[in-house]
Order: sequence, then C-alpha cells, then structure tokens
Amino acid sequence: MKRIAAPLLTAAITSTLAISAHAENYPGVPALEELGKAAPALEDYTGNLVLGEVWKRPDLSPRDRSIATLATLVARNQTGELRYHVNFALDNGVKPAEISEIITHLAFYAGWGNATSAASVVASVFEERGIGEDQLPAADIELLPLDVETEEARETAVQKNYGGIADGVLKYTTEALFRDLWLRPDLAPRDRSLVTVSALIATGKIEQVSFHLGKAMDNGLTKPEASELLTHLAFYAGWPNIFSTLPVAEKVFEAKAAK
Amino acid sequence: MKRIAAPLLTAAITSTLAISAHAENYPGVPALEELGKAAPALEDYTGNLVLGEVWKRPDLSPRDRSIATLATLVARNQTGELRYHVNFALDNGVKPAEISEIITHLAFYAGWGNATSAASVVASVFEERGIGEDQLPAADIELLPLDVETEEARETAVQKNYGGIADGVLKYTTEALFRDLWLRPDLAPRDRSLVTVSALIATGKIEQVSFHLGKAMDNGLTKPEASELLTHLAFYAGWPNIFSTLPVAEKVFEAKAAK
Amino acid sequence: MKRIAAPLLTAAITSTLAISAHAENYPGVPALEELGKAAPALEDYTGNLVLGEVWKRPDLSPRDRSIATLATLVARNQTGELRYHVNFALDNGVKPAEISEIITHLAFYAGWGNATSAASVVASVFEERGIGEDQLPAADIELLPLDVETEEARETAVQKNYGGIADGVLKYTTEALFRDLWLRPDLAPRDRSLVTVSALIATGKIEQVSFHLGKAMDNGLTKPEASELLTHLAFYAGWPNIFSTLPVAEKVFEAKAAK
Repeated sequence: MKRIAAPLLTAAITSTLAISAHAENYPGVPALEELGKAAPALEDYTGNLVLGEVWKRPDLSPRDRSIATLATLVARNQTGELRYHVNFALDNGVKPAEISEIITHLAFYAGWGNATSAASVVASVFEERGIGEDQLPAADIELLPLDVETEEARETAVQKNYGGIADGVLKYTTEALFRDLWLRPDLAPRDRSLVTVSALIATGKIEQVSFHLGKAMDNGLTKPEASELLTHLAFYAGWPNIFSTLPVAEKVFEAKAAK
Repeated sequence: MKRIAAPLLTAAITSTLAISAHAENYPGVPALEELGKAAPALEDYTGNLVLGEVWKRPDLSPRDRSIATLATLVARNQTGELRYHVNFALDNGVKPAEISEIITHLAFYAGWGNATSAASVVASVFEERGIGEDQLPAADIELLPLDVETEEARETAVQKNYGGIADGVLKYTTEALFRDLWLRPDLAPRDRSLVTVSALIATGKIEQVSFHLGKAMDNGLTKPEASELLTHLAFYAGWPNIFSTLPVAEKVFEAKAAK
Repeated sequence: MKRIAAPLLTAAITSTLAISAHAENYPGVPALEELGKAAPALEDYTGNLVLGEVWKRPDLSPRDRSIATLATLVARNQTGELRYHVNFALDNGVKPAEISEIITHLAFYAGWGNATSAASVVASVFEERGIGEDQLPAADIELLPLDVETEEARETAVQKNYGGIADGVLKYTTEALFRDLWLRPDLAPRDRSLVTVSALIATGKIEQVSFHLGKAMDNGLTKPEASELLTHLAFYAGWPNIFSTLPVAEKVFEAKAAK
C-alpha cells in the first residue's frame, strides 16, 4: 500500500466520500492518525484501502454498506467502533428511524444485551445531533400487511420439525418476529434481511445464512449486491467468516438462478 | 406490542416481578427509558415482552433465568449489561457464593479474559452491596465426592480419541475441571451444567451442546426446564443460536426419553 | 488448588516468571487480588495454575504464548484484558514492531473494528513505555519475496471454487492478503500463522483451522508447539473451542506425519 497524507479519519472521509460536514467532527471518535501510533500499516490500510477504495466500489451503496457495518458492530458488541459508524451511517443517508429499527431488530437476531448496549451509543449520538424521539418510530405502530400464505407455511414447517422441543421459541418466532418485528414499517424487509444476513456472517452463524440470504434475495437484494456485501464484510467481519460463507452463498445463488 | 407507561427499568421490574427494593437503585445502570431515546420499540419489547412476560413464564425460575443470563453475558464478554444482571441475580435469589463460582466456572468454559473482566464488575457490585469475602467460597475448600466410575470412563474415552494430540489439554481437563472445578461445593452440578449449556449456546458452540445438555439432564435439569431455557436464551443469545440448537436438543430429549 | 500468598498479579508474575521490572507497574491494570473480591478461586487459579504453571510449561515459549494470547484477546475484542497482555508481551520479548503487525494482521483475520479498538490500547501502552513510531514498521515497506508457485496454485484453486461468487473477496485475498500483508517483514510467516490459528480457535472458526494449522506447520510451527498451543488456548479461548479443535488438529498432525 502506498501511504498518502491522511491526517484525520474524518478528513480522509470528507475528501474521498464527500460526506457531509458532520463527518469532520464526530464527537468522541479518535482520529485516523491515532491508529498510526500503534500500527502505521493499519492507518494506511484503513485510510487508503478500506475507506478510500472498498467503500467506493460499485454494486453496494454507501448507505447499504453503513447498514451492514452497523449490523456487524452491534452483533459483535463492538460499541467502541459503533459511535463512529452511527455518525457515518447518518451521513450516508441511513435515517434515524432506520437506525432505531436496526437496533431493535438485532435484539432478536444478535441478543438482547447487544441491542441495549448499542442503544446507549445511538442515544448519545442522536442527542449530539439533535435527533429527538419525534424522528423515531413509536413502539405501537401500524404494521405492514402480512404475507399470510408464506408465514403459515413457515409456521407449519417449523412446528413439524421442532414442535414439543421448545414451544416458547416457536410461539415468539411467530408472534414477536414474523407477525410483529418484521412488519414494522420503518425498515424495509429488504433492509431487515441485509441486517440479518450481515449479523449472521459477523457472528459466524454460517449454518443460518442459507435461509436468510435466500429470503434477502426474495426481499429484493440483488445478486451483485449480495456478492459485494461479502466483499465489504470480509473487512468488517474478518476473512475467515467470509470464506466459510462462500460455499453457502454459491448454493443460494445457484438456486435463485435456476428459478 | 402495546406500549404501557414503563418509566424506569427498575420500576417496571418492581411492579412486574416484585423483586426487592435493591432493584430500584442499581448504581450505574441506565434506566429503561434511556433505551427509548434510541429505539422506543426496544424499550417497549424490553419492558413488556422480555421483563414483563418472558421472565415470568413457568417452567424456569427467575433464579435459573438469572444464572443463564449471567452465563450468557460473561461468555460473550458483555460487561455493560452485566452490572444490571448481577444485581438482578442477587435479587432473584442467586447467592453471592454462587455468582463467585459461576465466574470461576466460566474462566474454563468461556475463556480466562471473560472471567477476569466479569470479576471486576462483580467485585464492584459486591462492594456496593456490602458483600465481603466472608460470603464467598475460599479457593481451598472441601470438594464434593467424585463419581469415580463415570470420570474414569470419560478419561479413557478422551484418551483413546485424543491421546498424543494435546496431552496438556487432557491433563487439565482431568485435574482442573472434572476432579476439581466441577466438585467445588458452592455451585451445584445441576447449576454448573446450566451455566455451561447457556455459555455454549450463547457463543454458538453448538457442536458441544449435545454432551453438556445430556450431562445437565443427568445432573437434574428437567426437560421442561431445558426447553424453557431455550426460550429464555432466544432473547439473550439471539434467535440464530437457538435455531441452530433446536435439532441438537431434539436428539438429546429423544435419547433421554428412550431410557 | 492450594492457595498461596499471591498478593498482586504483577508480584506473582515477577516471582514466578522473572519478567522485567515493568511488570510491577502496568498502569491501569487491576491487581490479582482484585479478582479475589469476586472469586477467590479465580484469583487462585489465575496466580497458581495459569500464571504459575501453564505459562511455564515447556514446548511453547513465553513469547509465543504472549503472541497467542494477544491474538485471542484482539480476535474476541477483549480490550479490558489487552492492556495487561500488551505489557506482558513486551516483557516476554515480543517486539513493538511485531505487536504492530499482529494488530494489522488481525484487521483482516478478525475484523476491522477489532484491530482499531486494539490499536487504541496498544497506542496508549506504547506511549506509557516511550515506544515511538520510529520503532514501528512503516506502512510502505520492502516486502518478503513471494513464493510465486504456491500463491498461483492457491489463486487458481480459489478461483475455480468461488469465481463469480464474490470477486471482490478473491481480488483482495490475492492483492491485500497473500501478496501484501503476509509478506510484510516485521512479523515472520511462522508468527503470522501462530496469530491466525489462535484467532481462528479463539473465535470458534474451527472449519478454517485445518488450512491454517497446516500452513503454520509449513511455516515452521512444530507439532509440540502446536500441541502446547492448544493447551495454552484452552485457558484463554475456553475449553469448548479446544475440544472442537482436537479432531481437526489430529487430522492435520496425521497428514504432516505421513509426508
């Protein structure tokens, strides 16, 4: 990697991604040059390869990359990095209401403590940027219409496989997840799938990727987007999680292409 | 979800679970309404679904739920949430001596750094609540009697499978785990199993669940308790870990029923 | 376990491992007796079993143990413990330049946020100990020579398996990993392998261990070292990750012995 003058993380982003002025002053976020005090090569890869090249690749928008990155950080409980990426997500066009729903979604898909820890960070960024509860979706809200046929088929299949093993799990999968959470309107089903798939890959739950990557593509995630998502997550979830995902993705892509 | 007036996490718990006055004042723990500043739906699900409903379901006691939740948080290094749940566990009847042994047990089953990080949080809660070392089990203590036959069968099987691969691992599995740690008297074997199974599920070590869930049932965990444990952990360890566990649990339940 | 008088973590280490005077004063690191306020048994196991016995076992040097421990903590984002172990690693002979490269290496193998969080801790230890950027490898540096034949065989195999699935992943695997990162000279290939294998085991990516453990042995890690690494990591990555690794290690050891 060539090393260029990249004095501050925020400055590097401003010049390469042309994000808003907010990026120049994310409170509480260390500057890129801080990395150089421990690892000059890490500073260089971060500024020039990750922020300067990967985030600008086509096929996945900066907004989608921010959603995938937030999901990764929340699923792995990386609250240190989260402050930067909540700010960056807002500057990349992810709406406060969407961030709010991402956190809530991940309570179920990554664990309750992950979501509540993340909520503290998000609340403090929202406060710094003057984002009030009026911009956030209420708890009680009109839900999207349910695809009754698909959902009843899912319930029947799961009941047949696992009825009597953990009935509480099946009950809340139906009542809280597929007939409530997934129908909340402020995060599109395609984006909930993007969050879910990213969280699964980030936490190494590869055996669950097949179902959710297929569902993501049914919900509108294109193959080029899914493919580029793997490239993006290689950096944020680590290479080993991606190499474990590649054979699963291959089968999902083949199955979708055969339709 | 309906949204009710649930001003503070501690107040919600007091009203729904009738825990002690300590809950009204857990030092350093953010209030439930803080969640609402990032995600009103998360505040609502937390107060009404998780604390208001899941924790009150039959088949698993609040004490056992607290043990499972502590194990999850320690195994995942979620020290932020841990402060609340150590307090909550004490209010739910988990003894200081048991919490002390849970942390020590998880050093071996989740990793040393997880236990030492957790110890800091636990030590500070103990200090706030005036719990001294006199309430904690000493390092050197009279052990429970060993089931020699079962342990020798285990040693023989493991030696046969893995002798010569990592003899230090086998040595300490015998000396430190099964002839020492598991025999420490201040956490019952059934509860050590509850901790171990919860930690395995929480960290996605599904391939190790079969052995330890079987052992848990041998140690006295009932099938309704194990089943409800999966429901509880769906919320704290995330849905994907539970769906990966369901087929394993099914086989263990079948094997126990066939006896 | 017998309990001996082990008043401070740093004192215990000084007496048992004869490390440098730095160990007596690691700023910001809690003393071993702090553990005893939560769990006297954990204090005892830490001082007498882990630090007093495991770290002194033959077949794996304290330096290598420190590298494996750093990799574990960074891969699991355990920044709390990291401060102690960066200091301990320096006292065990791991060079600042090596620590710098370990962090950078793990950005790719454990996730970007893990490395940047670790970099903050490392930077502050370096500052406390007066280690300046002049002791760290520059981003732009002359690389080790490439083993063209092996690398081209790898590229061909991966392209054949996964071409068209995520071409960005394959591109950066070649350009950023095997033709750049792995060739940076300040961390030997054998040590990069030690870091990679430790990170895989620490995060439960067992399905990726076979390739990297084999590569580690090709890079010079001996079977006794690899075997003792599993014993060391049992304590730092937790028993379940090691028991899942044992059958994989067995196959790799057999394959290498058959050559």
